Amino acid sequence: MKPQAVEIAATRLKSHITRTPILRSRLLDRFLGCEIHFKNEGAQKVGAFKARGALNTLLALKERKQTPLEVVAYSSGNHAQAVAWASRHLGIKSTIIIPAGASRVKIAATRAYGAEVVIARSRAEAEDMAKSRAGVDGSFLLPPYDHDDVIAGQGTAALEAWEDLKGGEGGSYDAVFAPCGGGGLLSGTFLATRIFSAETKIFAAEPAMANDAARSYNTGKIFRFNDAPKTIADGARTLSVSDRTFHYLDQLDGFYEISEADILYWSQWMMHLLKVTVEPTAALGMAAAHQWLREGNRDKKILVMLSGANLDSDTYAAIWAEDHLSRLPAL
Amino acid sequence: MKPQAVEIAATRLKSHITRTPILRSRLLDRFLGCEIHFKNEGAQKVGAFKARGALNTLLALKERKQTPLEVVAYSSGNHAQAVAWASRHLGIKSTIIIPAGASRVKIAATRAYGAEVVIARSRAEAEDMAKSRAGVDGSFLLPPYDHDDVIAGQGTAALEAWEDLKGGEGGSYDAVFAPCGGGGLLSGTFLATRIFSAETKIFAAEPAMANDAARSYNTGKIFRFNDAPKTIADGARTLSVSDRTFHYLDQLDGFYEISEADILYWSQWMMHLLKVTVEPTAALGMAAAHQWLREGNRDKKILVMLSGANLDSDTYAAIWAEDHLSRLPAL
Repeated sequence: MKPQAVEIAATRLKSHITRTPILRSRLLDRFLGCEIHFKNEGAQKVGAFKARGALNTLLALKERKQTPLEVVAYSSGNHAQAVAWASRHLGIKSTIIIPAGASRVKIAATRAYGAEVVIARSRAEAEDMAKSRAGVDGSFLLPPYDHDDVIAGQGTAALEAWEDLKGGEGGSYDAVFAPCGGGGLLSGTFLATRIFSAETKIFAAEPAMANDAARSYNTGKIFRFNDAPKTIADGARTLSVSDRTFHYLDQLDGFYEISEADILYWSQWMMHLLKVTVEPTAALGMAAAHQWLREGNRDKKILVMLSGANLDSDTYAAIWAEDHLSRLPAL
Repeated sequence: MKPQAVEIAATRLKSHITRTPILRSRLLDRFLGCEIHFKNEGAQKVGAFKARGALNTLLALKERKQTPLEVVAYSSGNHAQAVAWASRHLGIKSTIIIPAGASRVKIAATRAYGAEVVIARSRAEAEDMAKSRAGVDGSFLLPPYDHDDVIAGQGTAALEAWEDLKGGEGGSYDAVFAPCGGGGLLSGTFLATRIFSAETKIFAAEPAMANDAARSYNTGKIFRFNDAPKTIADGARTLSVSDRTFHYLDQLDGFYEISEADILYWSQWMMHLLKVTVEPTAALGMAAAHQWLREGNRDKKILVMLSGANLDSDTYAAIWAEDHLSRLPAL
């Protein structure tokens, strides 16, 4: 896919989604001797960047006069809400298959966006049910990342950040950081960044205990977990990336593997400094940026993608169980 | 003071402060059968509306060519950071006297805004130290609420909300809700609202265990606590309102006394629905609005003032210790 696919997606999405703000913390910049721009996708529809990819895919189908009668997805997270929202936005019925044990809050939110929710006994069963339903009677299975229109849609978040920079203070980002789940956000971010800069470094951040993509990157061969890793960063619990996303991930400048302790630390500090809700997956990028800065990178301008803001109360409680704010960020 | 003092303050502050956004939750509106606009002062400079009153006071002094050589304040909360920020913004030295036991994070933030921080042994000693310093060698004591320019400055938050409504969808607010600490925000909100509407009801929200202002309102005589109440809503731990703020508070349409359980409940739901950080004091207004709606008020358009977004990690942990999100908001 060419980077321009992200520009086409941006034009398509423009009147439907939120142009999310860039957040800054002068205090953090001073602590770390750099300039960090945070793209806050927590302020996006459904509270996560996933709304972009889901809607871009459905709008592209509509343009080709292939609007499905029903959209199907399996997910226990932000993708479920994104598909429910995007479908209702276009007046299409949606059915979301959610594995048992998903939080009541997320199920309620998915229903509130108008989806029919079906509870499966396991993640594997949810996947099977969704796939067997797809293609039948005009049903369309909207995948969480393994689709060009999903990737192009996710890329519009970084595209907006670059446009804001070029239309504002000017200059360029030295580095861009984003979390890695299935690789959709990173693939789109890579494409969007290459529209504006060939030199900007692009880094992935992944929980160390869910490091399938980092292992794949290091060995050149896609590694797949048998069971979903139990990291607190629930957006990064995917079993593996796909061939499609690995094609882009393989071209990145590096992977940072983040400890659970660092995810908690940066979740607290992001909420404290930016005054917005930040889910643990969204803290990954800043944790990676911090490691990169500690490697001797000084006076850099960097972009950190905050992926979303959907947390259940258990996750909030886990984040705030111990105080990390008494240890100030430093290089 | 005339309502127009708030307009003068708004003109004065315009280029210095953040015009904070109105946040909405369609889901909450549907749950409660009404339309709620949240004025998010957590996105204000220093993360709280207090920046408005502090800077308005110093700018007014500057206009009168009475810029002090030093600004002094006593506070362990948002007022400390507001005075530090406003002073540095105008290039004035500031000294903030903070009682021992205040959180390290807030002390660090106050220092980061450029203030000299002095730690007093108690709240009473902090007050004495600040007052004895005021007037000496060009020092000016900037009070947290008992000053006309502070009140007028705080009123600019509600003024912006009204301007946004009139310049946008039009119509009027049926009711406005704000938390009550010393009464500065409510006094200013009352004045600002009266510029636009004589009929709009204005309600105060106060923790039941810190109900000095509600008692004062009910008896017509200012009630004063001997010791600061231990409510989790730390912005409402003031011992009493002042004659100046009571003059406005006495003209409100009512006080709601909020239980600690309800403060926790709405702190969770505000963060969950709005995706921004909300301090417990900021949840008070929504808790009061909920009670008012339950009294049979249907299809109303209301404004809720979210006062700030500064929480230490202990407060976060206390808010999320138990799950309140599984109980959906309802009438």
